[in-house]
Amino acid sequence: MLKLDSFLEERRIVVDAALDRFLPSESERPYILHQAMRYSIFCGGKRIRPILCMAAADLFCDSYEPAIGASVALELLHTYTLIHDDLPAMDNDDLRRGKPTSHKVYGEANAILAGDSLLTLAFEVLAGVEPSAPGQASRLIYELARASGSRGVVGGQYEDLASEGKDPTADQLDFIHLNKTAALIRAACRMGAIAGGASEDDLEKIGVFGERIGLAFQAADDLLNATSTAEQLGKAVGSDAEREKMTYVALYGIDQAREKTKALLRGAMSALQALSRPAPILESLATFIVQRKS
Amino acid sequence: MLKLDSFLEERRIVVDAALDRFLPSESERPYILHQAMRYSIFCGGKRIRPILCMAAADLFCDSYEPAIGASVALELLHTYTLIHDDLPAMDNDDLRRGKPTSHKVYGEANAILAGDSLLTLAFEVLAGVEPSAPGQASRLIYELARASGSRGVVGGQYEDLASEGKDPTADQLDFIHLNKTAALIRAACRMGAIAGGASEDDLEKIGVFGERIGLAFQAADDLLNATSTAEQLGKAVGSDAEREKMTYVALYGIDQAREKTKALLRGAMSALQALSRPAPILESLATFIVQRKS
Repeated sequence: MLKLDSFLEERRIVVDAALDRFLPSESERPYILHQAMRYSIFCGGKRIRPILCMAAADLFCDSYEPAIGASVALELLHTYTLIHDDLPAMDNDDLRRGKPTSHKVYGEANAILAGDSLLTLAFEVLAGVEPSAPGQASRLIYELARASGSRGVVGGQYEDLASEGKDPTADQLDFIHLNKTAALIRAACRMGAIAGGASEDDLEKIGVFGERIGLAFQAADDLLNATSTAEQLGKAVGSDAEREKMTYVALYGIDQAREKTKALLRGAMSALQALSRPAPILESLATFIVQRKS
Repeated sequence: MLKLDSFLEERRIVVDAALDRFLPSESERPYILHQAMRYSIFCGGKRIRPILCMAAADLFCDSYEPAIGASVALELLHTYTLIHDDLPAMDNDDLRRGKPTSHKVYGEANAILAGDSLLTLAFEVLAGVEPSAPGQASRLIYELARASGSRGVVGGQYEDLASEGKDPTADQLDFIHLNKTAALIRAACRMGAIAGGASEDDLEKIGVFGERIGLAFQAADDLLNATSTAEQLGKAVGSDAEREKMTYVALYGIDQAREKTKALLRGAMSALQALSRPAPILESLATFIVQRKS
């Protein structure tokens, strides 16, 4: 586990350096807007999506370099969803990654604009990076856009808000978690594999891995929200129950949610084993994602 | 002028049919989110950006077909900016294109999400359309993203909000109008030219045309806001003065703003005349943009 810790730390440093290169400087106008973009990017975060993306590329071409642009785009996009989800009109959260949320620091209008800018920059980065194969940039952009729009992350957030206070159903819960969380983690794995030149067959299988580990990630999140402390988590806890959110815990209870999480992890592992080559790093990452404490 | 009216109407129908094809159906989940996306797209709009984009393509390859995807993306993107600009935290407008704004109909959270979805779909469309030349998709995506993020439209909106109530200066006014309005109209012209296979030299010049006509468009908008009626305009009038917005009218007064508009139109026309071929349709469109009554 100690070895994984240093691996994660090393990769996080690579991702953060790349984010710093691609983000506009705070000394470029509009200063406050660029400051707000950087604030939310650099106020914490485990960089799980970029690290999965880089690991997927590494698996197929023995280098994470071709996946740097995609990794940056994934983190920009993920951070925009956090900023917008935290807004007063949405989840109205004051704390994120242990710090005040964007709208608490910069005001609501600027938080909306910082989110919009990060979303747009994600696509600018993907379109501007020299692709390692012809047509690769538009493939990556299509993956990211498809996973994150109304048929993906935004659609999941819509249903999440719409289902607050309603009786949880397995169908509705699956729709929310598949779209709000799993779609982007699936895209992270697929984008890394595309950047690494994976075969169609491997691409399909790593997508299945990504989807299952994405659901397991969300199940672990639901459990942490129900059982952890705010200090451990860096954001409000118990808030899901308070808002009557549709979660694994609400639908199945804590014990069954734990079983569900383990089953999802097993499913993810078997998808990995079907790949054309062994993937020990992705295995470790999958275990980490499920067992993390924050 | 009658001929231009029927030309605009004919092109508007082409654009609307393409938008309808690319937008998710209201019968696809999440239903209300897809309904909200379609509501704002189809509740009016002159489709000036798509029509300029198609005209630019037509000029260089005698067909607007290669620019259909870019035209759809431009209108999706433009409409997202209107939805977010109208939000209570921003301009707090109740009326747009003569109809209630998105947040008045669907609530604030859904309006934010509908905007996010339209922005994301713009890039999905560009990445998914079969390009007419290798690498063209990422070139178009780069143009659109660069023009619309924090160094373009969103940056302009940020400065627009930040400058409310302050004494207008020419420098600040130029920054706002160049970014908030002209950047996307410039991108529309350039994207059409790229889709039509224009030379680098023509691309440069049509970009200058786009920027000038974009500024003229905004100057005309400022004048309409100061001198028109709500009925003619389909949105609130006099609101710029009320909010102490930085406009051509606020800085120069009505007469000088009119002169400024004419000068910008002349500048746009001379950029057109420098192109490698005559552009009578773009000339007519430029005149229309400045002389329109709504």
